[in-house]
Amino acid sequence: MKAPSNKEILRRLESLGKYIAELVMKEKEPYFEIPVRTLSNTIWDPKERILKLGSRKLKREFFDLNEARKFMQTVLMLSLIIKARREGDFPTIRDLYYMGKHTIEYVDHLGRSRREETWDDQRESNSIIQDIEVMTGLLREHMGIMHDAKGKMVGNIIVKSKGYLIDCSKMGSGAYAIPPNPDSLEIVKVEADYVLIVEKDAIFERLNEEEFWRRENCILITGKGQPDRSTRRMVRRLWEEFKLPVYVLTDCDSYGFYIYSVYRSGSISLSYESARLATPEARFLGVTVTDIDKYKIPRNYIIKATERDLKRAKELLGYPWFSSKAWQRELKLFLKRKEKVEIEALSGHGFKFLSHNYIPEKIERKEWIE
Amino acid sequence: MKAPSNKEILRRLESLGKYIAELVMKEKEPYFEIPVRTLSNTIWDPKERILKLGSRKLKREFFDLNEARKFMQTVLMLSLIIKARREGDFPTIRDLYYMGKHTIEYVDHLGRSRREETWDDQRESNSIIQDIEVMTGLLREHMGIMHDAKGKMVGNIIVKSKGYLIDCSKMGSGAYAIPPNPDSLEIVKVEADYVLIVEKDAIFERLNEEEFWRRENCILITGKGQPDRSTRRMVRRLWEEFKLPVYVLTDCDSYGFYIYSVYRSGSISLSYESARLATPEARFLGVTVTDIDKYKIPRNYIIKATERDLKRAKELLGYPWFSSKAWQRELKLFLKRKEKVEIEALSGHGFKFLSHNYIPEKIERKEWIE
Repeated sequence: MKAPSNKEILRRLESLGKYIAELVMKEKEPYFEIPVRTLSNTIWDPKERILKLGSRKLKREFFDLNEARKFMQTVLMLSLIIKARREGDFPTIRDLYYMGKHTIEYVDHLGRSRREETWDDQRESNSIIQDIEVMTGLLREHMGIMHDAKGKMVGNIIVKSKGYLIDCSKMGSGAYAIPPNPDSLEIVKVEADYVLIVEKDAIFERLNEEEFWRRENCILITGKGQPDRSTRRMVRRLWEEFKLPVYVLTDCDSYGFYIYSVYRSGSISLSYESARLATPEARFLGVTVTDIDKYKIPRNYIIKATERDLKRAKELLGYPWFSSKAWQRELKLFLKRKEKVEIEALSGHGFKFLSHNYIPEKIERKEWIE
Repeated sequence: MKAPSNKEILRRLESLGKYIAELVMKEKEPYFEIPVRTLSNTIWDPKERILKLGSRKLKREFFDLNEARKFMQTVLMLSLIIKARREGDFPTIRDLYYMGKHTIEYVDHLGRSRREETWDDQRESNSIIQDIEVMTGLLREHMGIMHDAKGKMVGNIIVKSKGYLIDCSKMGSGAYAIPPNPDSLEIVKVEADYVLIVEKDAIFERLNEEEFWRRENCILITGKGQPDRSTRRMVRRLWEEFKLPVYVLTDCDSYGFYIYSVYRSGSISLSYESARLATPEARFLGVTVTDIDKYKIPRNYIIKATERDLKRAKELLGYPWFSSKAWQRELKLFLKRKEKVEIEALSGHGFKFLSHNYIPEKIERKEWIE
């Protein structure tokens, strides 16, 4: 799936606006047709192994009192994004909120002065951006909309951005901060056997400082906990375009398991983007509940699971994307033992244990689960 | 202030251990002498314009029942750090916690079996790392201790790390992620007129995407909100070694003002490192309370300050590092108006306003405060 060109992006955005304008010109009632982004329209696709939007659409009509406000918000946001693209600006989602925020003053049918805000908070404007994403099939990243970018990357990969070649094996003690729109990168050369995602930034820094990725010939990525869209997109591209196996290393707790599933299957709130963001063959390298005994984690390193951990684990147990035998066993064991363990607990076996034994041996022996 | 060499680092750590060993060999009572890291021993140095540790020291003695545990924790942590340095390992602060965590079983003077943990949680082990920092005059970064690194940098600066030249003007849409230990970087070339720190990552991404730093010939840095040690150290080096003016851009609220002061004057909890982390000439570019009227921020962009904002602002008002006329006026105005404004509110004047007008014009007209 190639990123659309700037011309194509503007064309798609403008044609959505034209569609509305034409309805008006023909004296028809203007409306948007928008795929529904709710839990009830989110489905698990067992063949593609990702979360997806279902086929339900809604009509957002101007001449519907309940929909008029949202209809106008959609037109407003669309016009702002088109304006930014035409002028080569890169507003943040917060900029778009402010840019579009103003007070409409009017006199109602009873002659009273009324005031209404175009939107009251950023949730409203963000939601409209998502509607425009699903209607146009464009990611907000394609539309030049900026946001925080959490991801970092190092390893044997060369990318090209704005004409510059960036060799991620030559970042020294630092790293390449993944841009908000990884589709703007051309991936020029990949000489790596796999991608290793680590949940925790501090562990990323440590593995980078000792050049784990050079020794193991891999690409090292962190999304700093729950990954953002751009980190997920980068990982997806490495799997899709270069067929690299992807391994995920997190703490052994419900939160870590969930982070893995977001990389692999997508999230409910962004199910409409799973096909571009998820990596359905991502493998969970650890830390697993089984590892606690296998790697003889000392009793005093083990943390008691909280009620929240257990509640979350019960939810995961019911998700179809955790239905494999291996995951069912792990989750049940987690619920039975009520114990969690951090990646760093492996350091009890020495500072080198994680990078010289645990990770390479698990990959070598195919001891991941999925 | 140059970073010590690896040899020097190991020497300093080992000589601390030797000092204790020698006391024992001479049959003297072993103790550490540690500068006190409390608020009461934190002083404001009006000449250097930074927060500093005072001269008070404490004696941590082995033969003192109240201190024995901490004494042993100090020896334990020191031995772990020396081990890591000797073997070229880069443990995280969490690794060190686990590596040193074990249960001591003993029989007390009444013949009862007892168990005690070397430390109960990471606050204990982190605090000991800080004690070792103040005793040796080494930053934990120098000791090869890893941690999250939040900072990003782009602009006309070339650094050298592990033998590689990294040109931060050739990162394309991405950025250079500042390493945990910026002292490991050699700053090879700086061709910039100033450093601009932006509080918010999303604004950093936007200014980077439009290559603001190229147009304005500056170095763009974000510490993503409250900055970490490595971002602060990087900024300090650019000011100290290259005499670059440093400007800070945050939201107009107590939190933003405080972030500025951490860059400029240091923080109370890390006052012992201000001389290496703070930039006492950093200038606050905005957003100021005065800007609300000056830039005609629309009423509906203005956010009501919370009780927490006001409480914080009152505290800032009393700090000697906010005692300048300009800051006293701003803080009093903030407390009077009880209003705050985000950087993005400036986008009401158009997406280009921040980068083409607000920032360059304020710098040009010297409209910062400090």
